[in-house]
Amino acid sequence: MNIVEFFAQSAGKWSSLRTSHHLAFKQQEGGKSELQIELLDKTDPAVIQLCALYEIDPETALCGARVTWDGTMEWDEEKHEGSTVLVPIADPEKPNQGSLLREMGYAEKAPVAGRYEMGSNDELVLITEYETMYSKERLWFESPNVRLRHSILKRFGGFSMASFCSEVRMGGAKPQESQTDAAASSSS
Amino acid sequence: MNIVEFFAQSAGKWSSLRTSHHLAFKQQEGGKSELQIELLDKTDPAVIQLCALYEIDPETALCGARVTWDGTMEWDEEKHEGSTVLVPIADPEKPNQGSLLREMGYAEKAPVAGRYEMGSNDELVLITEYETMYSKERLWFESPNVRLRHSILKRFGGFSMASFCSEVRMGGAKPQESQTDAAASSSS
Repeated sequence: MNIVEFFAQSAGKWSSLRTSHHLAFKQQEGGKSELQIELLDKTDPAVIQLCALYEIDPETALCGARVTWDGTMEWDEEKHEGSTVLVPIADPEKPNQGSLLREMGYAEKAPVAGRYEMGSNDELVLITEYETMYSKERLWFESPNVRLRHSILKRFGGFSMASFCSEVRMGGAKPQESQTDAAASSSS
Repeated sequence: MNIVEFFAQSAGKWSSLRTSHHLAFKQQEGGKSELQIELLDKTDPAVIQLCALYEIDPETALCGARVTWDGTMEWDEEKHEGSTVLVPIADPEKPNQGSLLREMGYAEKAPVAGRYEMGSNDELVLITEYETMYSKERLWFESPNVRLRHSILKRFGGFSMASFCSEVRMGGAKPQESQTDAAASSSS
């Protein structure tokens, strides 16, 4: 699976459970959200605009994805809503890795480019480095309709948070659904 | 890292946060526990006894580990305490994989042997199959003092639960502690 196939497999609506483990406080926080992921062509205006922001030739973009989320976390009563556009730009010599442009980082509200690497095990690893922060996220499909994500965050060089999300495709499975998804997808 | 090195690195006391995502109910449950892991030599009486239970020559055991846990989960008020012994038996031709004997399965209270595989990325994968249940667990170290675990459980062929544990070494770090563990280990 390459990153475009990974994004294509991610397209759709997902019901997501998220947990954050705050390692220093030994506390955890749960949350729920709905995710919508839309695959964008490299000629989509949103992709071209994001490339322009980073001063990158949009011809080098592999594709794009628009991710929209709407959820709640336990520790506050506020709605967490948002949307971002992601654009992978492969390294010229290594097609399985490259830069991942995004409108907005998950941890900071400014544009930030991360790195991606698509592993031989079909796992997508995203690494984002901020000034005082480092985040590594691993995403993989247990099946076409169950996507899992794990991330770890370092602040000032020390591990501060580990997160885990389980995502089940909503509203009907894709045609390639295998029998092993029966229990999970029947609940969505 | 081979499985004996993985067990040796796991030895000690750990403070663990656990979350279970019940996929069909879209509900999650948190828990906390303390884990104690003791590395056992292949000549330890507990290792020999477990091999005898499975009718396996204890000479083929690589080592053993005694895991003791004491914790609580949110949905009940009961203490979850227990202890088990694990013994890896490598496949003759493939030393990085084999059987994992255990006194007690995590999901069923009867002796059950699973399979292990130590990946080239230093990730330990444990697969246990019961009559109506399949569990796959992945364990890895983010650092010598931060161990993460993820598991997924299928019942009757459908995904039913995804779990995630973050474990921080308690009571002083091992000598090989790197600077990057400062934040997490200072809290233990």
